[in-house]
Amino acid sequence: MSDTEIPNVLAGRYASPAMKAIWSARGRIVLERELWIAVMKAQRDLGLDIPQEAIDSYERVKEQVDTKSIDARERVTRHDVKARIEEFCALAGYEHIHKGMTSRDLTENVEQLQVWRSMQIIHDKSIAALSRMAKRAEEWKEVVMAARTHNVAAQASTVGKRIAMFGEELLHWVGAWQSIMQRYRVRGIKGAVGTQLDQLSLFAKDGSKVRQLEERICSHLGIPMKWVNVGQVYPRSLDFEVISGLVGLASGPSSFCKTWRLMVGHELCTEGFSKGQTGSSAMPHKMNPRSCERINGFHSIIKGHLTMIASISGDQWNEGDVSCSVVRRCVLPDAFMAADGLFETFLTVLNQMQLHETVVRTELERYLPFLMTTTILMAAVKKGVGREEAHEVIKEHAVAVSNDLRAGRITRNDLMERLGRDARLHLSDAEIQTIYQENAGETGMATAQVETFCSMVKDIISHYPEAAAYSPGSIL
Amino acid sequence: MSDTEIPNVLAGRYASPAMKAIWSARGRIVLERELWIAVMKAQRDLGLDIPQEAIDSYERVKEQVDTKSIDARERVTRHDVKARIEEFCALAGYEHIHKGMTSRDLTENVEQLQVWRSMQIIHDKSIAALSRMAKRAEEWKEVVMAARTHNVAAQASTVGKRIAMFGEELLHWVGAWQSIMQRYRVRGIKGAVGTQLDQLSLFAKDGSKVRQLEERICSHLGIPMKWVNVGQVYPRSLDFEVISGLVGLASGPSSFCKTWRLMVGHELCTEGFSKGQTGSSAMPHKMNPRSCERINGFHSIIKGHLTMIASISGDQWNEGDVSCSVVRRCVLPDAFMAADGLFETFLTVLNQMQLHETVVRTELERYLPFLMTTTILMAAVKKGVGREEAHEVIKEHAVAVSNDLRAGRITRNDLMERLGRDARLHLSDAEIQTIYQENAGETGMATAQVETFCSMVKDIISHYPEAAAYSPGSIL
Amino acid sequence: MSDTEIPNVLAGRYASPAMKAIWSARGRIVLERELWIAVMKAQRDLGLDIPQEAIDSYERVKEQVDTKSIDARERVTRHDVKARIEEFCALAGYEHIHKGMTSRDLTENVEQLQVWRSMQIIHDKSIAALSRMAKRAEEWKEVVMAARTHNVAAQASTVGKRIAMFGEELLHWVGAWQSIMQRYRVRGIKGAVGTQLDQLSLFAKDGSKVRQLEERICSHLGIPMKWVNVGQVYPRSLDFEVISGLVGLASGPSSFCKTWRLMVGHELCTEGFSKGQTGSSAMPHKMNPRSCERINGFHSIIKGHLTMIASISGDQWNEGDVSCSVVRRCVLPDAFMAADGLFETFLTVLNQMQLHETVVRTELERYLPFLMTTTILMAAVKKGVGREEAHEVIKEHAVAVSNDLRAGRITRNDLMERLGRDARLHLSDAEIQTIYQENAGETGMATAQVETFCSMVKDIISHYPEAAAYSPGSIL
Amino acid sequence: MSDTEIPNVLAGRYASPAMKAIWSARGRIVLERELWIAVMKAQRDLGLDIPQEAIDSYERVKEQVDTKSIDARERVTRHDVKARIEEFCALAGYEHIHKGMTSRDLTENVEQLQVWRSMQIIHDKSIAALSRMAKRAEEWKEVVMAARTHNVAAQASTVGKRIAMFGEELLHWVGAWQSIMQRYRVRGIKGAVGTQLDQLSLFAKDGSKVRQLEERICSHLGIPMKWVNVGQVYPRSLDFEVISGLVGLASGPSSFCKTWRLMVGHELCTEGFSKGQTGSSAMPHKMNPRSCERINGFHSIIKGHLTMIASISGDQWNEGDVSCSVVRRCVLPDAFMAADGLFETFLTVLNQMQLHETVVRTELERYLPFLMTTTILMAAVKKGVGREEAHEVIKEHAVAVSNDLRAGRITRNDLMERLGRDARLHLSDAEIQTIYQENAGETGMATAQVETFCSMVKDIISHYPEAAAYSPGSIL
Repeated sequence: MSDTEIPNVLAGRYASPAMKAIWSARGRIVLERELWIAVMKAQRDLGLDIPQEAIDSYERVKEQVDTKSIDARERVTRHDVKARIEEFCALAGYEHIHKGMTSRDLTENVEQLQVWRSMQIIHDKSIAALSRMAKRAEEWKEVVMAARTHNVAAQASTVGKRIAMFGEELLHWVGAWQSIMQRYRVRGIKGAVGTQLDQLSLFAKDGSKVRQLEERICSHLGIPMKWVNVGQVYPRSLDFEVISGLVGLASGPSSFCKTWRLMVGHELCTEGFSKGQTGSSAMPHKMNPRSCERINGFHSIIKGHLTMIASISGDQWNEGDVSCSVVRRCVLPDAFMAADGLFETFLTVLNQMQLHETVVRTELERYLPFLMTTTILMAAVKKGVGREEAHEVIKEHAVAVSNDLRAGRITRNDLMERLGRDARLHLSDAEIQTIYQENAGETGMATAQVETFCSMVKDIISHYPEAAAYSPGSIL
Repeated sequence: MSDTEIPNVLAGRYASPAMKAIWSARGRIVLERELWIAVMKAQRDLGLDIPQEAIDSYERVKEQVDTKSIDARERVTRHDVKARIEEFCALAGYEHIHKGMTSRDLTENVEQLQVWRSMQIIHDKSIAALSRMAKRAEEWKEVVMAARTHNVAAQASTVGKRIAMFGEELLHWVGAWQSIMQRYRVRGIKGAVGTQLDQLSLFAKDGSKVRQLEERICSHLGIPMKWVNVGQVYPRSLDFEVISGLVGLASGPSSFCKTWRLMVGHELCTEGFSKGQTGSSAMPHKMNPRSCERINGFHSIIKGHLTMIASISGDQWNEGDVSCSVVRRCVLPDAFMAADGLFETFLTVLNQMQLHETVVRTELERYLPFLMTTTILMAAVKKGVGREEAHEVIKEHAVAVSNDLRAGRITRNDLMERLGRDARLHLSDAEIQTIYQENAGETGMATAQVETFCSMVKDIISHYPEAAAYSPGSIL
Repeated sequence: MSDTEIPNVLAGRYASPAMKAIWSARGRIVLERELWIAVMKAQRDLGLDIPQEAIDSYERVKEQVDTKSIDARERVTRHDVKARIEEFCALAGYEHIHKGMTSRDLTENVEQLQVWRSMQIIHDKSIAALSRMAKRAEEWKEVVMAARTHNVAAQASTVGKRIAMFGEELLHWVGAWQSIMQRYRVRGIKGAVGTQLDQLSLFAKDGSKVRQLEERICSHLGIPMKWVNVGQVYPRSLDFEVISGLVGLASGPSSFCKTWRLMVGHELCTEGFSKGQTGSSAMPHKMNPRSCERINGFHSIIKGHLTMIASISGDQWNEGDVSCSVVRRCVLPDAFMAADGLFETFLTVLNQMQLHETVVRTELERYLPFLMTTTILMAAVKKGVGREEAHEVIKEHAVAVSNDLRAGRITRNDLMERLGRDARLHLSDAEIQTIYQENAGETGMATAQVETFCSMVKDIISHYPEAAAYSPGSIL
Repeated sequence: MSDTEIPNVLAGRYASPAMKAIWSARGRIVLERELWIAVMKAQRDLGLDIPQEAIDSYERVKEQVDTKSIDARERVTRHDVKARIEEFCALAGYEHIHKGMTSRDLTENVEQLQVWRSMQIIHDKSIAALSRMAKRAEEWKEVVMAARTHNVAAQASTVGKRIAMFGEELLHWVGAWQSIMQRYRVRGIKGAVGTQLDQLSLFAKDGSKVRQLEERICSHLGIPMKWVNVGQVYPRSLDFEVISGLVGLASGPSSFCKTWRLMVGHELCTEGFSKGQTGSSAMPHKMNPRSCERINGFHSIIKGHLTMIASISGDQWNEGDVSCSVVRRCVLPDAFMAADGLFETFLTVLNQMQLHETVVRTELERYLPFLMTTTILMAAVKKGVGREEAHEVIKEHAVAVSNDLRAGRITRNDLMERLGRDARLHLSDAEIQTIYQENAGETGMATAQVETFCSMVKDIISHYPEAAAYSPGSIL
């Protein structure tokens, strides 16, 4: 690309070669020509008078893609498909393509094919991400940490459980994505207003031939389901469904990254930092969670694409028009490239991230007496203290300890001792010590939960072993 | 409601009583109390020391809802759940509820129950809408009309086919909605950070009892699936999935209404106009498609809710906080009430709308020669004329006829005669006349497509006969 | 409000009485009646035959608001304005209101008046917020802290500077808001399609009387500017401008709150915690930044309103319709009530928040050697070391120290010593010590910047002393 | 651009060369290098030891842009600015740039410069659009038409008035845009956390030199205002303000285009149709409003950009990070290129559009009796008939006539005769005829309103004559 031209940022910086190949100008033109040829072959087989030499001639030139020449034609016709028809016919020396077809018979199906193939890529990368998340969850399932709510230490949990939590969110959305793919429908060869009139005319009103033609094209495309009643276009809410699926798939990774960025701020971990990498051009010491930040950025982008595509859903006038065209030209490739970049980056983070277990342990110890308050509360309740009264007493002491620590009046958290001295809880100092010893660092069902997650992931991976084994390319 | 207070507009003007009952303040408080009681019963059965009299006492007062008293308590605690705990305990004279529970153990599950019941209502109304659309499509499946692309007459189709087109979009989304419902998961009783630690403590570290407790609560709620790994909250992308489903369900009706508004502009139809209704306070003659306009408005609202809920998806910090709280307080009820209002209004339109068949026929006749151009094009192609050359010739004459008509130079569309006189098409005047006679008003596969739609709807209705029979309430 | 009805959540929980008064059902109806009376008076003065007794009679009943009766009428007319005309006329016993007016002559102007008064409230509260931010910035302008980029300690700054940074963002938007208010235009009495035809007919084609009538109504409303060319409605992008202003005004507070939530996680501060408040119903020790979280939630809500209102901007069909109606019924009150709740909450946080200076200092000391690296880098550059080479050397040591600290291999940050021992930097150990002593805790121009901010705020406050002195109500 | 690469769609198909030049990779790199040189010169002048030969050497190579080489460096450093520093230094053979600067000192300012220059282009094109709208409004100010509300004929207006209505919306937003530009602030050279610490160190703590340096850089950039208190980044709500201005500027054109598309459906006009253009690859007769549809599509895109940029507003963590980076990389160029494409297309439509006055007149005549109903209503009111009663009587007849026409029972609109025969209106047949003759086709103040619009536009054009004279390039 020349330096004076403007590349697609998402393609140029973040998307993988496989995703870019689907959406390149050349790739698309070849897909269109293959569709035209498939239609001609089917039409000929079903009795239309199209010479075999013509089909052969089109076949021969189908890879000769000259976008400059096509652009020049479009400047005259002001109609992009007409320009591409003329170019292909001029190359082949025949005028046999596009019979009984309207522009949308070509473009809708080809765009859906691009979407379909992109969906498969994203599906497979989300499986790979699940696989890595399960691996990390397993690896750190026993590392106890101070879990936080409201960004404040709340109770003990494990690092593995935290990862499994975001992993299960992704798992849920992989299920949603599979459902979206199973119900994805191709428009087919439906003609100018969806009635298939011109194909029916071509085939002398023989409806069964029209149906056969469409079956053949759908199987050429490889998309399992198709629409029956459409207009010039298929409903744009189908595009909406796909993009909303991308927003959903990105949610688990995005929440993970927000949380990882928080943890980096407490020095509990890094996202990995490769040799030669520069954290800051100014501050040499910095090791920034830039990939996690970028993942959050990708999510914002896809959510904006969702607004765009939602705005053309439920907005069809009659049998359709092109007010959706420029929107889809932007959203469809860009949303997939953003999602692709997101998963490439996320896989890299999952591979390279590091946990500082010492720091995790130090933080836990600092907060442990606070984290135990619900356990003390339960014990007091068992002793017959009213739940609300016990809550009030514990709160009184906890707030006081916290204030003393923050003001530097004490350096060690002595909450347990204070509770032991307060008769209102009906728990002696010894009892409290016993509870503390027996329960410090308890994480409830966390480990079992992680194991359930890993086993669910294992199950899904067993159906897609190749996808699970995918390694991301090198990222910027 | 006092005139000085501010009602929820969507509830007050548009939503049905069934939907409002789910989201009323009182309704929610009773649901919460029932959940607390269900937990107490299960805890007692599993061995916790909770006196039967306490449970009885809570049961006795559970319908005594005094929101003013609760509000007063919240102004002190600044914590809404704490306020409701205190109120319920004060009424019952015991402190046995909420044991081992955190606020979210209560609120998440109850809100999910509200969502779940609302999803069922919307599901059923979308089935009812499908049923009415199929009825209308069937009724008008033979009424030929000038179908339009780019808002310009393109080819003949039928009114029934146009309705089936939007109907099939809705049908697709009913499938999506059912998939969303099947995969909908409840959070369950997971404790402060999701580890179920406090229940485990209560049950002396017996994990099987914790699992049994949760099973019992889930079956109390009636939601089939549940999360395993969550934090304080379930992933907000689950809410996102629900709202995106509403946007999708509303898309077919919304496109239908945009198109109906266009058709009203051509006097082809009305949305119905009841006795006593005023179209305009100024212009007595007006019969405005205000319900269709309103449906488009509802769609805009739900799309905005989608932006809200998307913004809290993928935004979880650690095990969660309440930055999503006020958002969900607004979005969850409002999106469902907007969707409910949308379907109530849509069902009313489907019941009351009228087609002006005479006007439809007059319009068709005016455009018929234009609509036949693709058929003439096909015929010329069969005669051996190059497709692109024939296209150019027809365009030349069609544009000239159109300009003559618009300028008043001619009053009758004489395109066929002009084409018959042009030797370049290789079609004699007689041949063209024959084609015209044989094909005028042909609508291709339109009728067969409508029948396929109706049979698909019939199939789904057979599973939900009661839903299909629903009649909307009277709308504003 | 009865417990079975559904209140507006934003009004019921968060908005101030002043804001609610503007948007209550009763309030609006009285505003409408006052507008009708103002029109009648002007019409009479300009020569129309309207009896003074009729006007008096309308005046007498204008406060008799019975929303139930109006609702009943609307169920017949299916037209809200017609229902309110009939009610008011029935009360007064005359039929003289609404002459030459279309519904929108009433509703557009009254809604704009509601918007206008709400804009004034928000303006004043944003001034109050600025005033408090300046006070806090001044209070803590010398408290040195470890400023963070990428959530990682970067360089020293001051707490006051951090507040001034978000304050200056708010200050910028107060300027934007004032500009929006100055350019806000009222639609005026323009008739059914904007041509003022019916008023012109009423006044026997005397255009000057039509202009006078409109002038009088605009001055009744108190909005300085008005539109000339409109249709049935004023352009909805005007509503969009207002809502986008709210999003902007909320941005500084929202970024402040995100940052404060982060700081609470490091125990550097709290948002304030009042007596009796409960942080968590489960965990008695918790002091959560729930108000800050709520403010972030409000911002998400208003951004969703922005999507709604954007979707009806640039979407006018001809002279207008009511597809925007239900959208505006929701967005206009709700966005203002969310913004009002946001500022009420923000003012409360600004009043009650606490800084733990000891913790701030401890954190600073821990990071100080890292924060000094740019200063060392500058010194090395002055010594003639290439900037990029020096950067590399410092990075090498900084990463090593950081890793040693995190792994617990060292407990004191000895970066300065390590740099002093590395000959590549051309700085002796003594030189480094000197630099350290002279620069530790330097915060550049931070204090001067804060002072500039405070002086800008002082200037704006001097124009709105009453607004600046506003105290928020008690919040939930 | 190679066919296998992926271009930016908006740049490649729609934006003008001037806009693309601002956002090209090469263009940006040169801007950055110029900024570095400007900083070096200022630093040297203010006393820093930077050899003149070094500056000369950088100057010499600043146009040698090799993006491939820079990309290769970024793959090692994983830091884009660091890569560009190294490249520039390697070319020049010195290491003197970027002293005391952090990455954001470079990138923020350069991006703001790109935004600033883009804002000027859009400003000027919006002036050109206003100028053309005024010309068209003037041209057709006397062409009477049936104005529509709810897409239904309502009252007579003029075509010029309709254009002026959308024109005045644009005019309002040009004012808003100018206000946004006047208040636009550049970040300046503020260092890593905004304290200007490193510049202060470089200048031996002489704050006045730091201020002078910044003044010089701002005047190099040419942006009038600057921020005082920022962090690593300027507040992203400033970007939000710019994009919201684009949404606003596009609203008038977008509403115009929606309406024009409706009018094309009634054959009242076309958007222009150039020689050689193809309306449909299938249907040769079609003349589609594709440019108007595209303009509506652009608006949807920019609204999605607004969602993206809103999501990073109010989301600053501490002194900032790069979670906004990929979002801004996409939104800033793309929103401006979409807006640029929108105005290029809109100017083309304004130049080429055609009105079919004969069709406009025919339609008007058909509806005229209906359009006169408010005038009859006013006359009846003057005769003493109650307004609501007269309204009811007229509605009864109007609905009947309309139904008779639509059913083909009558072919001529005889509403006036029917009203003349109804005693309840107190108007004789003769009186009604007189009213009809005197008022048919009356358009109230429409012409005067158009003239006011034209004079406002004339005024603004007089300040920007060159901008007003701009002609769009040829569009696809």
